[in-house]
Amino acid sequence: MSEKVLIIGGVAAGPKAGCRIKRLNPDMEVTMVDQDNLISYGGCGIPYYVSGDVSDESELRSTSFHMLRDEFFFEFAKGIKTLTSTRALSIDRKNKKVEVQNVNTGEKQELAYDKLLLATGSQPFVLPIPGVDLDGVFTISDLHKAIEIKDRVAKGKVGKVVVIGGGAIGIEMAEAFADLWGLETSIVEFMPQILPRIVNWSMATILTKHLRDSGVDIYLGEGAVEILGEDGKVTGVKTSKRTLEADLVVMAAGVRPRTQIAKDAGLHVSHMGAIVVNERMQTNDPSIFAAGDCVEIKHCVTGKRFFAPLGSLANKEGRVAGDNICGIPSIFEGGVGSFIMKGFDMCIGATGISLDVAKAEGFDADVSLTSPADRAHFFPTQAIACFELVFDKRTRKVLGFQGVGPNNDSISARIDAAAALLMQGATVEDFSNMEMAYAPPYSSAIDSINAAAYVAENICDGRLRKIDIDEFYAWIEKPETHPDWVVLDVRHPKQTEPFVEKFGADFWLTMPYEQLRERWAELPTEKMMVIFCNAGSRSYEMQRILDHNGRTNNIVMAGGFNVVKRIGGDWLPAVFGGDE
Amino acid sequence: MSEKVLIIGGVAAGPKAGCRIKRLNPDMEVTMVDQDNLISYGGCGIPYYVSGDVSDESELRSTSFHMLRDEFFFEFAKGIKTLTSTRALSIDRKNKKVEVQNVNTGEKQELAYDKLLLATGSQPFVLPIPGVDLDGVFTISDLHKAIEIKDRVAKGKVGKVVVIGGGAIGIEMAEAFADLWGLETSIVEFMPQILPRIVNWSMATILTKHLRDSGVDIYLGEGAVEILGEDGKVTGVKTSKRTLEADLVVMAAGVRPRTQIAKDAGLHVSHMGAIVVNERMQTNDPSIFAAGDCVEIKHCVTGKRFFAPLGSLANKEGRVAGDNICGIPSIFEGGVGSFIMKGFDMCIGATGISLDVAKAEGFDADVSLTSPADRAHFFPTQAIACFELVFDKRTRKVLGFQGVGPNNDSISARIDAAAALLMQGATVEDFSNMEMAYAPPYSSAIDSINAAAYVAENICDGRLRKIDIDEFYAWIEKPETHPDWVVLDVRHPKQTEPFVEKFGADFWLTMPYEQLRERWAELPTEKMMVIFCNAGSRSYEMQRILDHNGRTNNIVMAGGFNVVKRIGGDWLPAVFGGDE
Repeated sequence: MSEKVLIIGGVAAGPKAGCRIKRLNPDMEVTMVDQDNLISYGGCGIPYYVSGDVSDESELRSTSFHMLRDEFFFEFAKGIKTLTSTRALSIDRKNKKVEVQNVNTGEKQELAYDKLLLATGSQPFVLPIPGVDLDGVFTISDLHKAIEIKDRVAKGKVGKVVVIGGGAIGIEMAEAFADLWGLETSIVEFMPQILPRIVNWSMATILTKHLRDSGVDIYLGEGAVEILGEDGKVTGVKTSKRTLEADLVVMAAGVRPRTQIAKDAGLHVSHMGAIVVNERMQTNDPSIFAAGDCVEIKHCVTGKRFFAPLGSLANKEGRVAGDNICGIPSIFEGGVGSFIMKGFDMCIGATGISLDVAKAEGFDADVSLTSPADRAHFFPTQAIACFELVFDKRTRKVLGFQGVGPNNDSISARIDAAAALLMQGATVEDFSNMEMAYAPPYSSAIDSINAAAYVAENICDGRLRKIDIDEFYAWIEKPETHPDWVVLDVRHPKQTEPFVEKFGADFWLTMPYEQLRERWAELPTEKMMVIFCNAGSRSYEMQRILDHNGRTNNIVMAGGFNVVKRIGGDWLPAVFGGDE
Repeated sequence: MSEKVLIIGGVAAGPKAGCRIKRLNPDMEVTMVDQDNLISYGGCGIPYYVSGDVSDESELRSTSFHMLRDEFFFEFAKGIKTLTSTRALSIDRKNKKVEVQNVNTGEKQELAYDKLLLATGSQPFVLPIPGVDLDGVFTISDLHKAIEIKDRVAKGKVGKVVVIGGGAIGIEMAEAFADLWGLETSIVEFMPQILPRIVNWSMATILTKHLRDSGVDIYLGEGAVEILGEDGKVTGVKTSKRTLEADLVVMAAGVRPRTQIAKDAGLHVSHMGAIVVNERMQTNDPSIFAAGDCVEIKHCVTGKRFFAPLGSLANKEGRVAGDNICGIPSIFEGGVGSFIMKGFDMCIGATGISLDVAKAEGFDADVSLTSPADRAHFFPTQAIACFELVFDKRTRKVLGFQGVGPNNDSISARIDAAAALLMQGATVEDFSNMEMAYAPPYSSAIDSINAAAYVAENICDGRLRKIDIDEFYAWIEKPETHPDWVVLDVRHPKQTEPFVEKFGADFWLTMPYEQLRERWAELPTEKMMVIFCNAGSRSYEMQRILDHNGRTNNIVMAGGFNVVKRIGGDWLPAVFGGDE
C-alpha cells in the first residue's frame, strides 16, 4: 500500500512540499486541498499585478515555462490529486482523517492520511474599528481581492486611496496606486515610522521622504480609528488626527497565522497563534507536519522563535517538510528575517534585527550609519546608498544590517551577504574581512559591508564617538532641548556656505578637512563640536586628530550629509550642493 | 620618541595601512615611498578610463569627495610624509634602514624604520616572445600606460588591437577598445577557454559568445608566439595558427608579485614569488609587514596559500597590517578569490574554486548547472542567468559558485552571498537553506542560490543523473564519438519543432512535460535518452518518473536550453524560440 499524504493549503509551502514528495517518492499518494479556487500564486507579486507591471493575474500562478499552476497542472504534471474550493474543517488525529467541505456545493467528505501537512498560511489582521465591512475596504488576503481592486481602479472607479499600515505590503500597494494609476494615495501608520521594528529610523525616514516626494502622503503616529462610509460604500478614513477621503481603503496592518484547525486538533500553538514545529517541521503529533506562514521558526540571531510570514522561507520549510515526510532527515535551521522591497526609485532591505528590537531583546546594541557609493565612486552609474549595521558592543556580534539606496540590486547584494554571515553568528570583524567581489561597475574595493563594519569596530573600540542621526535631528530641530553645541563642518567651502549663511558662523563653524592637522588650535573649546562631513569618514579622522591634541569635547555626525539630505527637514538651507 | 613606520608602495595596501595607522596612533611618524609619481589610484578602473566611462585619469585617484590623492593630500590631509618617484633599492634589516633613490635626480638616501610595510604590488607578466619591446605594445602596469593607450586611441592612431590574454583585464580592455571606440579588437588566449581556472567551461563559453556577438574576435587555444613590427612599431601578432594585424597590442597575460627587494633582504618568499606572511600580515622578520599583491594568503576553501592580486583584498590586508603595526592584534583569515567582471551587457562572477581546480586539488568534485530567472519570473525586467555550483560529492562541501547573466547587480548579489558561506565552510545544505531576501523586483522565492544547491543535493544523493554541457556538446557536435543515444525534449511543441525538423523525429524525440506521467510507456527503451528542457528542472522530474517505472537509461541535460542558446553552436537550428 502506498502511503497517503494530505496537504492542507495550496499556495507556497503546500505545493512545494507536494511536488518534492512526488519527486522523492513517486509512489506516495499525495492529495492537496485549498479553500480557494486560485492556488499556487506568487502572493508577493500582487502589488505588481495591481500596478500593471504584471499584466494578468494568471502570470502570478504560472510556471517559468508558462503553464498555469491550476488543479489540472498539479494533477497531470505533478501527480498530485488537487481539490480546490475545498475547506478543511477538522482533523481527527486518532483516526488520521480530515473532514473537508466543498465551499460551493457544501458537500463534505473525509480524507484519510498517513502524513498530514498543514500549510494553512496566514490571514490579514483586520483592525477592530468600525467600518471594516464597507464596500471598498480590502485586505490583501488572496488573489480575488487583488483582482477586484485592479478591476475597480482600471475602470476609473477610484480616485483616492488610503492604505492603513506602513509595512511592506502597504507601501508596495501605495506605490501601485500612486505610480502608474496616478491615484491620490495616503498611508496611515500608527507607529512613528514606516516599517516599524523592521528597519531603523534613518532608513525608514529616507524612504518616507522618497515616498512623499513621489506623491504618496504619509501620516505617521496616527492610527485609523474609523472607516467612514455612505450607503454601505467607503468614503474615508478617520485617524486620531484627521479625516482622509477615500474611495478605496486597503487594510495592510499585518498578518496572523491561520491555525484554528490546528488549535482545535490540540496541536501545540504558540501564544502568537503560530504552530510550534521542530527543526524537521514536525508538530507535536509525529504524523502531522506544518510549514509556511502558519508556523513559527527559530531566529538565528536571537535564538528565539519568531513568526516570519515570507514566501522565501515558506518554500524552504515546505521542502524540508517534504523531505521528512519521505523519511529524509533534512533540517530547517531557522531564519534571519531577510526583507527587501522596492519603493518607487528606491530599494530598502534588512536582515537580522533592528536597533529597537535589539535593545528590547537586551543586547548592548549600537549602530553604525554609513553612506557610501553603491559602486566605485568614479564609475558613472554610482549612487549613494545608506546602511546601518546593528551590533552588540560587548560581544561584537552583528545583530542586523539594513540598507536603502537606488532601485537596483546593490542593496540586495549586501543584504544577502550579510544574511549569510548572520546565519553563522558573525562578528563585526567577520564583516570587516568579508570578501566582496570587486569590479568598478558593481562595487568598491572597500565594499559597503566592510566600511560599515570598520565604523562599528571603531565604535566598539571607543575610537569613534558619534551622535546618531535621530538625536542630531532632535537637537537641531528643537534647539531649546539640546546642550551647548556647535557644528564643525569640514566639507568644501562651496558646500558649507549655505549653512553658514543660515546658522551663522558662530554656530556653523567650518574648517576644510585638509587644514585641520595644521589649524585645529584655532577652534573654540567651550562648546561641544558636532563634526559634519558628507559620509562621516572625514569627521572621524578629524575627531582622531582633535582627540590626539587633547580636544575631546566633540562627536561625529554619523552618516553625514549624504544621509541628512535624504532625510530632509525644514532646518536645511533652501539650496545646497549635490552628493559627494 | 615617536615610532617610525616606513611604507614601500603607494597604490592600495600601502595608503590604506598608512591612513589607518595615522588614525589609530597619530603619534606615529609614517613615511610612504613609491617609484611612480601617480599614486593611490584605482587600478581596476583603468579599462573604464580607457573606454571613456571615466573621463579623466585623475578621477581614478580622487577621493569620493573629489580631492586628488597626490603626495600633498597624503602629507596634509593624512599626515603621511610621501615621497613619490622614489624607488626603494634595498632593505638593511639589521640597522632597520631602507635605501631609496629618486628616479628623476638619481639622489639616494637612507630611511630609518621601526616598522616596515612592503606593499610593492605586482607587475604584469611579459611573455618571453620576440617583439615585446616594439612601440605600441603595452602592459597595464600603471596609470601612465593607460594614459598613453587612451591618448593614442583618442588621437585616432589605432584601428586594430590585439589583446594577448583572455583573463579579466584582457577582456575588460577589449571591451574598452571595441565598445565606445569601435576598434577592431581580438583576444588571443593560449588556453581552450577565456578566464581559465577562474570559471568553468559553460560560464566562459557563454561570455565568449557574447563578446563575439559584440564584435570582439576571440581565438582560443592559440598562444601568441611573436609580436610583429616594422620600423620599431608593432604591426601584428603571430599566434600558433594565424597572424593578426594590430596597431596596438595589450599584453594581459597575468601578473607576478613584485618582491625582488624582499628576496634580496632574505625575507621568506614562496615558490610563486610571493612574500610569505602570517595572519597578522607579518613576514619572518617581526619588524617587517607585507600586504597587497606582493603577498600570498590563505585560501579558505582549499586551506592552501594562494596568490590573489585583488584590490579588495589589498585594502583588507593593508588595514590588518596597519592594526598590527599599531599593536592591535587583528587577523586576516584569508580569502576565497571572489571575482566579478562586466563584459558588454553581461556580468560574470565567481567565488571559491572552479571545477578544474577542484579536481586538480583532489576533491571528489562535481557541478550543478542551472539557468533560472534573475528575479521573479513574472516580473517584467527578469532575465535568465546561468550558475554553476562546484561541490565535493563525498563531503557535500561547496567549493565554488559562479554565475553569468545580464549586466546588473544580480550576479554580484549571489557571488557575495556565496562567498560569505564559503568563508564558513558551508555545505550544499547550507546553500539550500540560505535565506535570500525576496521581493519580485529583486529575486525569486526560491533564489538562484537555493535552486543551485537543490540540484547539487539531488546529484549528491544520486537522485539526479546528468550529462554536463561540455560533454553534451562533444556528443552532438561529433556524433561519431558518442554512444547510442537520443534526445527526449519535453518542452512545448512550438519549441521542439525546429529541432525535430533538423534532427528527425527518431533522434529528437518529444513528449510534452505534462503528459509523461501518462505516456512514458510509449518511449523507446533501446537507446539512452538525454532529457532536454529549458532549465533542467522539468527534465529532472521526468527522470524521476521514468526511473520509478524502471526506465533508468536516461540522463538530464544539465542547465537545459537556456544555457545551450547562450553557448550557441552550428548544430542548432537556424531559428528557435526565446527564453522561458
